[in-house]
Amino acid sequence: MLTLTILGSGKVAHHLIANILDSDQLQLQQIYARNTNSVPDMVPESSVVHSIDQLQPADIFIIAVSDIAIEEVSKHIHLADQFVVHTSGTIPMSAISQERKGVMYMLQSFTKEKDVDFSAIPFCIEANHAKDFQMLEQIAVCFSERVYKISSKQRKAIHLAAVFVNNFANHMFTLGEEVCKEHQVPFEILKPLIAETANKIMELSPVEAQTGPASRGDQNTIKQHLELLTDPTKKEIYQLITKSIQNR
Amino acid sequence: MLTLTILGSGKVAHHLIANILDSDQLQLQQIYARNTNSVPDMVPESSVVHSIDQLQPADIFIIAVSDIAIEEVSKHIHLADQFVVHTSGTIPMSAISQERKGVMYMLQSFTKEKDVDFSAIPFCIEANHAKDFQMLEQIAVCFSERVYKISSKQRKAIHLAAVFVNNFANHMFTLGEEVCKEHQVPFEILKPLIAETANKIMELSPVEAQTGPASRGDQNTIKQHLELLTDPTKKEIYQLITKSIQNR
Repeated sequence: MLTLTILGSGKVAHHLIANILDSDQLQLQQIYARNTNSVPDMVPESSVVHSIDQLQPADIFIIAVSDIAIEEVSKHIHLADQFVVHTSGTIPMSAISQERKGVMYMLQSFTKEKDVDFSAIPFCIEANHAKDFQMLEQIAVCFSERVYKISSKQRKAIHLAAVFVNNFANHMFTLGEEVCKEHQVPFEILKPLIAETANKIMELSPVEAQTGPASRGDQNTIKQHLELLTDPTKKEIYQLITKSIQNR
Repeated sequence: MLTLTILGSGKVAHHLIANILDSDQLQLQQIYARNTNSVPDMVPESSVVHSIDQLQPADIFIIAVSDIAIEEVSKHIHLADQFVVHTSGTIPMSAISQERKGVMYMLQSFTKEKDVDFSAIPFCIEANHAKDFQMLEQIAVCFSERVYKISSKQRKAIHLAAVFVNNFANHMFTLGEEVCKEHQVPFEILKPLIAETANKIMELSPVEAQTGPASRGDQNTIKQHLELLTDPTKKEIYQLITKSIQNR
């Protein structure tokens, strides 16, 4: 049985704790949280500490705090020879001051209220030493079926790619909703199309899945759409993405 | 039993024919197709005509040809007093020359090879006369649970919104894939995130669902991402969409 200690009490920490408590192969050693209210109810009070000095040794320490606090929290772990990882998509492994360091990044956008099925979420892991990597892998496969060995440099690229496919794609939904509102059309009319757009990508590459006036070179429709767009930023986005599609 | 005649043999015509043949309440009267090879196998040969002059009266004529051919095909229907609709998202109802005219636009991106469940696809309908609208509605509900009364002007806006949520969102997936390739990361690592991005929209408005460095105002991450982007068009897209998210 591997023992895990979680530092933090945000969304990622919550989901990690819930999944550890559910696991037969992992044991929750301790939780470090600055205030008690933010710790999930199911955690026994005796496992919660409010000062880093109260931490005991564990097989792994997982720092699940905001990006800017990772370095600081790591520096305050004074136990000798511990394996410490963080869970950030952007911070390099080098932010951990311990010699035995690593990263376990879960590639998903989390919402605290919504239960998360970790099994389908990609876990991107790396570690400074082969032996620690092995243990980290053993832990990650307890959570998820999709575990990837990813370097700090690759992780940065994944995070950037995630901004395109998640944040920016979602903004396209916002722009679509605004166009609907302006013309008294219910946004729900677009939801089956949004579902199908994501669905197609599970089987086709995005270049193969591309349809629409830009990829057909349908100048007449493009011209009509630009006339319909009154907002200058939307117009600019339409023109730039149309150009980018046509350059592929 | 309502009788339907389909003019055309492309993707939309194929899916319409398959769904009519499956229906207990609709009857396929005739199909007009320029060449026999493009007609689905399940259609009896006696129902297929290759000249518009061979068409007989039916309750409704559905013109399912490419946008530029709609007006021409409509002009060639010389039977008196027929109800004629087209299926385009962008062409106004006025392109039909018959006095009894309408539109039945299915809001989805079709692939010929893939079976389509019409029941979840929004049908946007309009007609010149109230009585014809009623019949069109009666037909549409045989295909789908989501039937909307949509004017030609609204339909244009829906088509534009669909470009944002489908074509442009899909292009974001393309850009994400390119970033992955450049850094030797498998694109499949992003697929659960893409699925979740579309999933969230079924329950949250896109503005509520928005996450990421742009919506957090995380200038440090934005700066790092821009440094990572070597392609000038991708950089421009990143900056423009980031600005647009921040202006909401």
